[in-house]
Amino acid sequence: MSDARAILLVHCPDQKGLLAKITEFIYKQGGNITYIDQHVDLAEQCFYLRAEWELKGFALERGEIGAAFAEQLGSPLSMTWRLYYNDQRPRMALMVSKESHCLDDILARWSSGEWAVDIPLIISNHEVLRPTAERFGIRFEHIPVTKDTKAQAEAQALELLEEEGVDFIVLARYMQIISDQMVQRWPNRIINIHHSFLPAFAGAKPYHAAHQRGVKIIGATSHYVTAELDQGPIIEQDVTRVTHHDRVEDLIRQGRDLEKVVLSRAIWQHLNRKLLVFKNRTVVFV
Amino acid sequence: MSDARAILLVHCPDQKGLLAKITEFIYKQGGNITYIDQHVDLAEQCFYLRAEWELKGFALERGEIGAAFAEQLGSPLSMTWRLYYNDQRPRMALMVSKESHCLDDILARWSSGEWAVDIPLIISNHEVLRPTAERFGIRFEHIPVTKDTKAQAEAQALELLEEEGVDFIVLARYMQIISDQMVQRWPNRIINIHHSFLPAFAGAKPYHAAHQRGVKIIGATSHYVTAELDQGPIIEQDVTRVTHHDRVEDLIRQGRDLEKVVLSRAIWQHLNRKLLVFKNRTVVFV
Amino acid sequence: MSDARAILLVHCPDQKGLLAKITEFIYKQGGNITYIDQHVDLAEQCFYLRAEWELKGFALERGEIGAAFAEQLGSPLSMTWRLYYNDQRPRMALMVSKESHCLDDILARWSSGEWAVDIPLIISNHEVLRPTAERFGIRFEHIPVTKDTKAQAEAQALELLEEEGVDFIVLARYMQIISDQMVQRWPNRIINIHHSFLPAFAGAKPYHAAHQRGVKIIGATSHYVTAELDQGPIIEQDVTRVTHHDRVEDLIRQGRDLEKVVLSRAIWQHLNRKLLVFKNRTVVFV
Amino acid sequence: MSDARAILLVHCPDQKGLLAKITEFIYKQGGNITYIDQHVDLAEQCFYLRAEWELKGFALERGEIGAAFAEQLGSPLSMTWRLYYNDQRPRMALMVSKESHCLDDILARWSSGEWAVDIPLIISNHEVLRPTAERFGIRFEHIPVTKDTKAQAEAQALELLEEEGVDFIVLARYMQIISDQMVQRWPNRIINIHHSFLPAFAGAKPYHAAHQRGVKIIGATSHYVTAELDQGPIIEQDVTRVTHHDRVEDLIRQGRDLEKVVLSRAIWQHLNRKLLVFKNRTVVFV
Repeated sequence: MSDARAILLVHCPDQKGLLAKITEFIYKQGGNITYIDQHVDLAEQCFYLRAEWELKGFALERGEIGAAFAEQLGSPLSMTWRLYYNDQRPRMALMVSKESHCLDDILARWSSGEWAVDIPLIISNHEVLRPTAERFGIRFEHIPVTKDTKAQAEAQALELLEEEGVDFIVLARYMQIISDQMVQRWPNRIINIHHSFLPAFAGAKPYHAAHQRGVKIIGATSHYVTAELDQGPIIEQDVTRVTHHDRVEDLIRQGRDLEKVVLSRAIWQHLNRKLLVFKNRTVVFV
Repeated sequence: MSDARAILLVHCPDQKGLLAKITEFIYKQGGNITYIDQHVDLAEQCFYLRAEWELKGFALERGEIGAAFAEQLGSPLSMTWRLYYNDQRPRMALMVSKESHCLDDILARWSSGEWAVDIPLIISNHEVLRPTAERFGIRFEHIPVTKDTKAQAEAQALELLEEEGVDFIVLARYMQIISDQMVQRWPNRIINIHHSFLPAFAGAKPYHAAHQRGVKIIGATSHYVTAELDQGPIIEQDVTRVTHHDRVEDLIRQGRDLEKVVLSRAIWQHLNRKLLVFKNRTVVFV
Repeated sequence: MSDARAILLVHCPDQKGLLAKITEFIYKQGGNITYIDQHVDLAEQCFYLRAEWELKGFALERGEIGAAFAEQLGSPLSMTWRLYYNDQRPRMALMVSKESHCLDDILARWSSGEWAVDIPLIISNHEVLRPTAERFGIRFEHIPVTKDTKAQAEAQALELLEEEGVDFIVLARYMQIISDQMVQRWPNRIINIHHSFLPAFAGAKPYHAAHQRGVKIIGATSHYVTAELDQGPIIEQDVTRVTHHDRVEDLIRQGRDLEKVVLSRAIWQHLNRKLLVFKNRTVVFV
Repeated sequence: MSDARAILLVHCPDQKGLLAKITEFIYKQGGNITYIDQHVDLAEQCFYLRAEWELKGFALERGEIGAAFAEQLGSPLSMTWRLYYNDQRPRMALMVSKESHCLDDILARWSSGEWAVDIPLIISNHEVLRPTAERFGIRFEHIPVTKDTKAQAEAQALELLEEEGVDFIVLARYMQIISDQMVQRWPNRIINIHHSFLPAFAGAKPYHAAHQRGVKIIGATSHYVTAELDQGPIIEQDVTRVTHHDRVEDLIRQGRDLEKVVLSRAIWQHLNRKLLVFKNRTVVFV
């Protein structure tokens, strides 16, 4: 593929010359860098980098790049790194409940070709959104969840997700707590949307709580799921103004637009390998 | 004064015909209404209204309006109401600590004539901002506060505030907790600015906490002070985007601009009698 | 229908007592007002009002309200007014071209029941979006438009719109200029989305122009269509920050999210009878 | 000075390896890079870079860095570049008219030590703001401007600005057109604030024009002054929502807060050497 590009994400302890060494590595093999951005967290003494370069004209084959990078830089400099290619299509599963707005937004972007992603599977604890999935010809599996069947339901979900070879999971208003086991299987690869401006109003019924508190601005937050509820690394947030005229149902209505846009931005950033996580915070490359 | 106007603020249990009755009251006396806005909280069954009308051509003298309103409407309909005149200049005291940005912003608006307010007194627990006060010829009183002298210091402040006949107090980054006694003396008349998007990051060092949590948006909140720290009715909030590049000191720098603008908007709304408080929430008339 | 409500929109030359008279009219017939908001444009000496009240318990039947209002208030006070009922479902036609994001957003809201509207017809000058229409079972008519067939194409569109008894039309990125004849047939009832912050970058290729000018913020504007291109009354606008990193295609990508949300807000306000137009400006009731 | 740092700004035709070469240059001399950011405009084939590194431990003396960089990289690679030091205090002149809000904001930041800048001179075509200048002990020169004396007045201003050795000039709502001669003397070093969201409402009375057009959002724009009025490279913009309730005077009042914040952000970026101009657009480094 003529415009195929390699994407490199790195983080490691900071030291002099890291940027020079990495750009040198790419440059010496004839790589044309189309994107490079780096960040140094001086407080944590941590270095972060994202680079993108054309495979055309690059001296190494795809299969050789990782090993060469590991040998020359990754291992000697104690880097945590990942290598992607822009022409790989990740496989994304969706978990939903009854609310359709996030699912609708995701499927519209997918079907219009806005996103280069495959969606092999939608899992839901309700039947409500099956017609939406069918409209787009996507496999829909209904796995009811009750207090008693929770563990069993998740085992069933895990099996389906494995079966479909899913790279990452989006909780598009799934409204169920995910087990540690599942989080550990897809670390920093399960994206949730929470309908508040975290850390304000974590947990259930955030719009009711926001109304009760009388805030003048409401928000939505997308984050990677971790073991602690609503405590994972924040990917994206956005807000909108409200007034005393807005009842709880008005907050819910306006919040829907926030939620879907904030979630879709996070997915876009994940798909485009723009995100690095370190110490429960994200670096979001532009 | 030819463009003098009366300002009426009302809240009461909702019932049919309240708006008709109040507009009728003003209209029958020949009042030309230049502003009227109302709000019904259906959940709380509560009615709120703000009206403004010209005194010119109004059949009642200033001294008579309150009694007439009370007799005809206020008492029979169990209204909580206040009557103001737009040509009254309220007396505002400022309490500050070491940070100058909010004080500077307030004094600039005052000295340029943007606000119709008198500032008879600035109280501070430090000497740092005395030159600022002196630059504008405003009385500055230094009342040091330590753990042991806290009660005594506040007694001294109260005395000065009473002596100057202060109508309301602005805590322009005062950073000290106010006693219940003082809150009860000026209920819904002490305005604070908190340097976070409440209820997130209440308490000390909110920018450090925001940085630690990795939020993508920071905020500032102005609210009336109540007995519980950072729990009073919110008047105004605003936010700004931040990124992983922003260190704590960058949040502090950007936050200063938020704080001063959010505080000054709240003061403007208070000065213009735009605010009603009920059940720990504000109605902010446009 | 037990929670049926009447919605009254009024504008007229301002004079004393208008609000009292209108609320009195509703109140005397036993109407329970669930919403009332008014605005006086002092410069134009114009009065605007929107009221909503329950039909249950109201002394007049639906068929009688208009005549009674006209006789008692509308005619004597030279009012321009309209009466709606919240349980009427308007018929909305969509005109689209090749871009799917606005159409997708509208159909998602419609199919999820977020909006109480019927969509009998989608007209397009291309075939591209037919599958989307079919997915939702909505009539899709392809009317190609060329320079030479423009008049004929519009005549065909008009006929279809009349045939379907359309109340208002949404140009969801239709990208074709609408004739005066059509505008006059649906005055203030054709809603367009323009992909810039009007009046900046009116006309073609606004994202290219914005990039060229080096703006730091881009926007989208929904407005009623009038005879002059991109000059109609603005209903809603929103913006998003961009940087020097953003190429034209990045502006287009980010702009899509603005466009669909801004257009959908405008449709929601139109559907809920929140909009009044006077002298090329809108009053947007909350 | 122990935390002294060099700041390098570069732009040049893009080619492979630029970043590697520049970081190598700093790294080989023992420089500890505390900031580096680069941007490639692929459409223009132009490369931009900003780097900051500690002088402590750097092998070259201040006086030698420029020559070494020019010889090794600047000249061979056709770079346009500038070298600054973070401990240099630029000299900023202010030109004002009658409006105080921008001036007040600037002087507050200066006097509180928020900005590392000297302000040797304020020039005004009116006497109104002399007391403000005097309050801060800053030289204030009144140079009246009339149609007939315009050229002469500007000659006088130029002389004063030269006399005070001014590095850059801020038009803090000066409201007079600047001559080409002056622009050429301080190219990309005269910062203006325009009270609209450019390119909308360039020229006089933008708030009146915005009100007339019925926009739902107003803005402010800071830009470098060029020969064409309101056409220079945009540095920063911001916006705020308005409604039909807002009269022209309300737009003016709310706009003041936008103007002062947008102007001060632009000054901060200029002071911190964050800005590069190319083809009438700015690169704003974070």
